[in-house]
Amino acid sequence: MRAAYFKDKNIELIEKKRPELSKGEALLKVLIAGICNTDIELHKGYYGFEGTPGHEFVAIVEECPDCPELVGKRVVADINVLDANLSGGSYSGDRRHAPNRTVIGIVNHDGAFAEYLKVPAENLYVVGDNVADDTAVFAEPLAAGLEVSQQIHITGNMRVMVLGDGKLGILTALALKLYNPNVLLIGKHADKLAIAAAQGVATHCIESADELSGLASKLGKYDLVVEATGSEDGLSYAIDFVRPEGTVVAKTTSHKPTSLNLAKVVVDEISIVGSRCGDIGLALSTLEQGLIDVSGLIEAEYDFDEFVSAFEHACRKGSKKVLVRM
Amino acid sequence: MRAAYFKDKNIELIEKKRPELSKGEALLKVLIAGICNTDIELHKGYYGFEGTPGHEFVAIVEECPDCPELVGKRVVADINVLDANLSGGSYSGDRRHAPNRTVIGIVNHDGAFAEYLKVPAENLYVVGDNVADDTAVFAEPLAAGLEVSQQIHITGNMRVMVLGDGKLGILTALALKLYNPNVLLIGKHADKLAIAAAQGVATHCIESADELSGLASKLGKYDLVVEATGSEDGLSYAIDFVRPEGTVVAKTTSHKPTSLNLAKVVVDEISIVGSRCGDIGLALSTLEQGLIDVSGLIEAEYDFDEFVSAFEHACRKGSKKVLVRM
Repeated sequence: MRAAYFKDKNIELIEKKRPELSKGEALLKVLIAGICNTDIELHKGYYGFEGTPGHEFVAIVEECPDCPELVGKRVVADINVLDANLSGGSYSGDRRHAPNRTVIGIVNHDGAFAEYLKVPAENLYVVGDNVADDTAVFAEPLAAGLEVSQQIHITGNMRVMVLGDGKLGILTALALKLYNPNVLLIGKHADKLAIAAAQGVATHCIESADELSGLASKLGKYDLVVEATGSEDGLSYAIDFVRPEGTVVAKTTSHKPTSLNLAKVVVDEISIVGSRCGDIGLALSTLEQGLIDVSGLIEAEYDFDEFVSAFEHACRKGSKKVLVRM
Repeated sequence: MRAAYFKDKNIELIEKKRPELSKGEALLKVLIAGICNTDIELHKGYYGFEGTPGHEFVAIVEECPDCPELVGKRVVADINVLDANLSGGSYSGDRRHAPNRTVIGIVNHDGAFAEYLKVPAENLYVVGDNVADDTAVFAEPLAAGLEVSQQIHITGNMRVMVLGDGKLGILTALALKLYNPNVLLIGKHADKLAIAAAQGVATHCIESADELSGLASKLGKYDLVVEATGSEDGLSYAIDFVRPEGTVVAKTTSHKPTSLNLAKVVVDEISIVGSRCGDIGLALSTLEQGLIDVSGLIEAEYDFDEFVSAFEHACRKGSKKVLVRM
């Protein structure tokens, strides 16, 4: 089969053997995959990654000896894979934080930038017929946006802000809009803010981060501020916007150390809550109900033959979601 | 009256007029006051403080025109004083975070290192007869320790750690022991750890902070880690000890920026919760019920005439609580 192969900041399309299944695993034929900022970070070499990435995908179950009823079904997958010793029900905790887990396309598990990949059947979610491939492929990133609502009890009367209008910021703002009518998204790109504004999210466009300090005193304090700027400076700005005893949710996995004014956090008793990927079943249900329209987030769609061009496109500053069709 | 006066890193005992009361205020005659690390920071000039500090105290109500029934009563006080426009019931929020509040002995309100101070009657808590002055004076710092239990739902089956065996660390460990049988206090001073150990807190003595990294892998992960080291490096160590989706409570009001590995906080979805002073009514009740013995925390007691010597004693590295008797 064909697969993208990342090594030493190079990308190649190679021929390799289809994965061989172990107990409980399904062989998936990839239909479509999305390129995520995490893939770009893997390419830059931050994690010493070598192999086939790709963790946003929709696929058809081609083989599944232990769950034959899944064969032929269109699926998405929770990307956190339990250690074989823990799978099959012996682990009752959150698989996203399970010990020795692998992560599809990220940590010790080949991903979806390939014709086929293998995934434990227990990780699969069947996609409803009413959800197109290029919508279902957003289940994984939308789950990361919805995760904020799974960590924090969001009520309608809260003042909620999302900082950052990248893909994750927009999806998070759209997700939080389901829980709160007053979500404000702040970013630097009028065209991207418009995607969220079209679905009822209030937006504010700034020219540069320098404006944020002044804006904090003008807008007043927020109960919840989600930091999705992608920059190690984002957390400080988010803290400026939050009220005493309020909450900042941190989404940025910066590789540089973040400088924190801990005295302010302590005196104002602010909570900072780290937030990563979320419940893909919830995200899929949200898409199946048509609660969020992700179509505006699609930048381009490439054939898998053109994977290298697709990846270069995804790397362009400010680009939205680039999809690859197998 | 006599009062301590802090200015430009100097301390003088001066003669000044008794405070004049405004509506709702009581004149308090101080019986005993404690010297806190915050007073030491005020003296070092971190906040541009000038005036009379002192926010841990027990006093007798000498005058109280609006609540004459309080006269003669022995009291402690919530140190957060509402803006006059908000006092008397028009503010329903938490006074510890009220807008434009003053803070007794810290922010725009003369404190208790004096023969008299004035405090709104609504801030006063009458001390039960069974609580000695040198116990009741711990109500304010104990409230800061108990505050963790007011922010986080602590259950008996959690693994709870307190990092730092200073006064606040010990009081926090003793406070959390009321909620959890397995509190572990880690510090560098065997004699201080012994104070907590005598009341059933598990302890572990280290020689230097360098040992903490190794200890984290040896002890396993904790559900809740309270960082009370007083050092800007404490937060990173605390994060090493906490499990995925666990909570770090930050107590250190460091003036230096803290460096934070945000990627770890995000990937492990850790919560960092700032925590400051707490509910003095709860602390007083805890002392009245005899649930915590604070006597081991007393380093020395001085007459107010010797205030400068008392303060120098309190500044010695590793000193416990120094009290000043009026």
